[in-house]
Amino acid sequence: MENIRGDLTLTPVGHVSSPLSDRAAAPKQGTEGAPDAWLVFEPAYHAALEGLRAGDRVIVLTWLHLASRDVLRTRPRDDPANPETGVFATRSPARPNPIGLHPVEILQVTGRRVRVRGLEALDGTPVLDVKPVLAGDTGP
Amino acid sequence: MENIRGDLTLTPVGHVSSPLSDRAAAPKQGTEGAPDAWLVFEPAYHAALEGLRAGDRVIVLTWLHLASRDVLRTRPRDDPANPETGVFATRSPARPNPIGLHPVEILQVTGRRVRVRGLEALDGTPVLDVKPVLAGDTGP
Repeated sequence: MENIRGDLTLTPVGHVSSPLSDRAAAPKQGTEGAPDAWLVFEPAYHAALEGLRAGDRVIVLTWLHLASRDVLRTRPRDDPANPETGVFATRSPARPNPIGLHPVEILQVTGRRVRVRGLEALDGTPVLDVKPVLAGDTGP
Repeated sequence: MENIRGDLTLTPVGHVSSPLSDRAAAPKQGTEGAPDAWLVFEPAYHAALEGLRAGDRVIVLTWLHLASRDVLRTRPRDDPANPETGVFATRSPARPNPIGLHPVEILQVTGRRVRVRGLEALDGTPVLDVKPVLAGDTGP
């Protein structure tokens, strides 16, 4: 199927299963005390997981389904002491396209379930994609 | 506006303006000889750019509008010597949700145009998001 320009509809390929269910209490980044979590993939996408292994570093993309989409400026980390900043210069979940970007380590792959370390996404968050980390991601 | 679960429609916030127009000739990664390019944002999203500066390292998310979406396994780098691998273990543009992830350095910000170094996306590619690189992106 050729992708058609203008059709920008995402298909969830799975969801996050996590003990995190309270948005206010969730850490803002995975490195800030986020728990381990499962990525649970739909049966139709099982083959796309082939080659993922424990120990791999990957980037998980999610759809931050609770985030507002009409915010263009925000105070970073919700801190009133911070100046208002354009959302493209922050990692706020509130942004025109609320795609979450989560660098994590894979702990385990069991069938269609992938356990990852330190994921700050809430339970039930749709998963869009998984990509391996490349050397070029971390610097020029 | 609260985001409604199930509404997973992306809104392009701009597009790539680049000398790259030939998919076959384009580098596979930005670190592989990709040219500098402009991100040209729609007027409605100008405020979201506030705070972006030359020298910043950011992650640009794009919609790879020419990529197939029904590919689950591929041979990395289109090399027939490589074994078939699940697309979630590769950076192939062909994947269920063809979101491009491009770590780049900002060279210049001029109004609604942002010049970036080494972007492998083709001319006309829709831009979805820009996020600053965090220390946690590059390792645990």
